[in-house]
Amino acid sequence: MEMVQLNSSLPAMSRLIYGVWRLADDENTSTAHVRAKIDACLEQGITTFDHADIYGEYQCEKVFGQALAEDSSLRDQMQIISKCDIAIPTSLYPERRVKYYDTSPEYIRMSVENSLRNLNTDSLDLLLIHRPDPFMDATATGATLDELIKEGKIKGAGVSNFKPSDWELLQSRMDNTLVTNQIEMSLLERDAFTNGDLAHLQTLNLHAMAWSPLAGGRIFGNDADAQRLQPILKRIADEQNCDIDHVAVAWLLAHPSEILPIVGTNNLDRVKTMSKAMDVEIDRQTWFELLTAAAGEEVA
Amino acid sequence: MEMVQLNSSLPAMSRLIYGVWRLADDENTSTAHVRAKIDACLEQGITTFDHADIYGEYQCEKVFGQALAEDSSLRDQMQIISKCDIAIPTSLYPERRVKYYDTSPEYIRMSVENSLRNLNTDSLDLLLIHRPDPFMDATATGATLDELIKEGKIKGAGVSNFKPSDWELLQSRMDNTLVTNQIEMSLLERDAFTNGDLAHLQTLNLHAMAWSPLAGGRIFGNDADAQRLQPILKRIADEQNCDIDHVAVAWLLAHPSEILPIVGTNNLDRVKTMSKAMDVEIDRQTWFELLTAAAGEEVA
Amino acid sequence: MEMVQLNSSLPAMSRLIYGVWRLADDENTSTAHVRAKIDACLEQGITTFDHADIYGEYQCEKVFGQALAEDSSLRDQMQIISKCDIAIPTSLYPERRVKYYDTSPEYIRMSVENSLRNLNTDSLDLLLIHRPDPFMDATATGATLDELIKEGKIKGAGVSNFKPSDWELLQSRMDNTLVTNQIEMSLLERDAFTNGDLAHLQTLNLHAMAWSPLAGGRIFGNDADAQRLQPILKRIADEQNCDIDHVAVAWLLAHPSEILPIVGTNNLDRVKTMSKAMDVEIDRQTWFELLTAAAGEEVA
Repeated sequence: MEMVQLNSSLPAMSRLIYGVWRLADDENTSTAHVRAKIDACLEQGITTFDHADIYGEYQCEKVFGQALAEDSSLRDQMQIISKCDIAIPTSLYPERRVKYYDTSPEYIRMSVENSLRNLNTDSLDLLLIHRPDPFMDATATGATLDELIKEGKIKGAGVSNFKPSDWELLQSRMDNTLVTNQIEMSLLERDAFTNGDLAHLQTLNLHAMAWSPLAGGRIFGNDADAQRLQPILKRIADEQNCDIDHVAVAWLLAHPSEILPIVGTNNLDRVKTMSKAMDVEIDRQTWFELLTAAAGEEVA
Repeated sequence: MEMVQLNSSLPAMSRLIYGVWRLADDENTSTAHVRAKIDACLEQGITTFDHADIYGEYQCEKVFGQALAEDSSLRDQMQIISKCDIAIPTSLYPERRVKYYDTSPEYIRMSVENSLRNLNTDSLDLLLIHRPDPFMDATATGATLDELIKEGKIKGAGVSNFKPSDWELLQSRMDNTLVTNQIEMSLLERDAFTNGDLAHLQTLNLHAMAWSPLAGGRIFGNDADAQRLQPILKRIADEQNCDIDHVAVAWLLAHPSEILPIVGTNNLDRVKTMSKAMDVEIDRQTWFELLTAAAGEEVA
Repeated sequence: MEMVQLNSSLPAMSRLIYGVWRLADDENTSTAHVRAKIDACLEQGITTFDHADIYGEYQCEKVFGQALAEDSSLRDQMQIISKCDIAIPTSLYPERRVKYYDTSPEYIRMSVENSLRNLNTDSLDLLLIHRPDPFMDATATGATLDELIKEGKIKGAGVSNFKPSDWELLQSRMDNTLVTNQIEMSLLERDAFTNGDLAHLQTLNLHAMAWSPLAGGRIFGNDADAQRLQPILKRIADEQNCDIDHVAVAWLLAHPSEILPIVGTNNLDRVKTMSKAMDVEIDRQTWFELLTAAAGEEVA
C-alpha cells in the first residue's frame, strides 16, 4: 500500500483510508467483528482510519476504541483521523434544540477529549474541522488547533468541506499549516475538479481526501447518471478483474494530485478487497471516458 | 455604545450606524425633525451616520446638512460615511440616459465635493465606492481615493457590494488600505456568511458593515421565510423585553467578526430605541436556531 | 493599429487579432485566398493571428502555413498565437474514443511540433493552454511551458477559458509569467466583467483576449437579447459610419483593461474593414447603455 506524507511532520498515511462512519450501524458491533475489519485493513496496508465524534451518534469511536483497548499493539499500527464541530441533537445532549456548528475552543477541546477517551488513545494523528462554521471566531479556533498540536493531543489539523475562502480565513490565524481538506469527490460528484476546490489544494502542494467515493452508493443505482456509467465501469472491471467500486475508487486514485479516498463499507468481504482499487489502471483517456459517461456530455 | 476602530487612523465609529437613506422620504423633512433624529441617535451613542450621494435623489445629504448648518457643534460629535459611483437618471442630470456607474477621478471628485457642500462639512470620515463598476479603471480610481485621503477631504476609503475579486483589484492600486465592505446581510439574506464575502474581510482583520439588516422589512412580512422566523424572533423578543427588529439586528451583532449593522428607520420612536439591539443576548445555539428557521432547513 | 505589449519580452501584438478558426471552412481555401485575407489584415496593421491545433479539424494551421511557405517575408510581419490541449476524436487520431484534455508534456510537445511544422515556422509567439484540464499535473505542465520558452519554440505562454483558480495553480509551477487569458466576452456574454475573471487579470496588470466578440453571430440574430440590442447598435453604427459588428467590438475595446478582441470572419470584405472598430467611440454612458440593452435591465 502506498503511504503518503501529508506534510513533513505527520506520520505517513495509507493512500486508501477506511471510513468507519457506519461502524455502529452494523448488525454485529462486537469487538471481535470490529477487530476483524481492522485486521482486514491492516493486512492490506490500509493503516489510516477516518472517524468523527458524531459518527453513529457518538458510538462509532467507542465501538472502535473497544478493539484498541483489547490489544495495545494495535494503536501504533494505525493513524487515526477524527473530526468535530457538528453538534447534533441527541439524547446524549438534551440541551440541544437544533443541529449547529461549534468551533469554539471549549467545544473543540471537549470533543477531542471525548474522542481520545472513546478511542482509548492519547493522541489523534489528525483532527479535522468537520464543516465550515459560519459563526467561527477564526482567531480562537486557530489558536486552539495550534495549542492542541503543541500539547500533542493531535499531531496535525485540517478541515473538511471547506471552500478556499473558509480555509484561507482559518489558516491566516494559525502557525501550523492545515494539511488537508476532506471533500466529497466521486464520478457522480465532480464539482471539486473544476470549481477551484481541488485546484486550491494542489496550488498549496497538499493532498485532498475524498469522502463518498461511490457517491453514497449511487454508482450501483438506477438513476440516469449511474445507468450511463455502469457499462463502462463494468467493462473496465471485467478487463482488470475487479469490481465496479474498485474502478470508481481508481478513478480518484488516478488523479495527478494524489487524492486519498475514504472507503466506508461495513461488509467485511468488501473491506478485505478494498485495496484492489490500487491495481486498477486508469489512463488519461479512460479517465475522461468515465467522466463523460457520468456527465452525459463531452467536455467543452 | 460600543465604538469600533475600523483601522488605526480613522475616528472610531459606533457599532450601530444610523442609515439615512430615506431621510428625504419622511413626511416631515424639517430641520427640527431631522435634528430630533440626530439627537435621538447621539443620546444612544450612535454617532455614525451612513449617507450616499444618491439617497433621496440627491436630497438626503442636503436635508441632513441643514441640521448641521444650524448647529456647528454637531459635526464633531459624529462620523459621516458617504458613497458614490451610482449615476441615476434624474431631473438634476438630464443628460443621463441610463443608470450607470462612474468611478472616474472626475466623477468621484465631483460627487465628494457635492457631498461635502450638501453636508456642510469639509471632510467625510469614510467614502465608499457604492457598487462595483465593471468599467472601473482601478489605477485611476485607486489613485483618486489615495489623493482624497491625502487632501483630507475623506479620512478613509472603503467599498460596498464588492466581491473579493473587485476588492483585490482596487486594493492592488492603492497605498491606503480599504477599511470596510458594506454588504447586504440579514437573517433573510445570509449568503455572505458562507460564500466567502464575510470570510474575506475577516481574513483581512476588517469589519463588515451590514445594510438592510431587516431584509428591507421582510422580517415583518408574510412570506414563508418570515413566517418560520417570526415565532422565534417573538420568543426571544419577549424573553429579552425588546422588539423583533432588535433581535434581528442582534443576530448580526452576535457574529464574531463584529459586524456594524446600518439601521435605517424614519420612525423617530424606533430611532430612539435602536440601541436596544445591543443588549439582546444571542448565544451560539440561538444564532443557529434563528438561521435554521430562516433557512427552513437544518445546517448540513 | 494600436500595438500591445502583453509583457516586456514578447513581441508587441496588434490590438485587434484575426481569428482563423474557420479558415478551413471557407469554400475557397486556396493559398491565394488565404493570402488575400492575411494581406487584408496586415494592411490594417492587424498583425496577430489566433490559431489552435484543432481548428478545422487540424487543417487550419496547414492552410495558413501554405501561404507562409509561399512568401518567406510574411512570418516576420506577424505574431502567431496557437493553442493546445483539446484532443478531439477524428480520423487523424482513430485511437481516440472521446473528446478529452491533455496537458501532459508529451502531448503539449507533440502539438507544438505539429503546429510549428504546419505553420512553417520555428517559433510560436504565444502558446495558450486551450481549456483548463481537470486532470492536469501542473508541475509537469508548467515545467514543459518553461522549457518550450527556454528552447525558443514558443516565446511566451498563456491560457484560455481558465478560472482564476486554474490560473493560480499553473502559475504556481512556472518561472515564466503567464501573459493572458483568452476568454469569451461580448455584449451577450458579459459574466467575465462581474464574476472576477477579468478583474483577476487586471489585478495582475495583464490583458485579456476576448473570443467570440459577436457572441457567435448572435448579435445579428433574432433572440430577445439581440432584439433589444440591435436598435442601439444601429444608432451608434449610423452615427459613426460603420456596421453593428464594429460597434460590438468597440464595446470591448472601450474597456479600461485594454482587451484584445479576436475577430474571426471568413468574409474577405468584412476582414478588410475589421479595423473600423478601432475608430468607434464608446463613452462610459454609452457603454452602460449597450450593457443595459443587452441585459434587459438596468444595473443594480
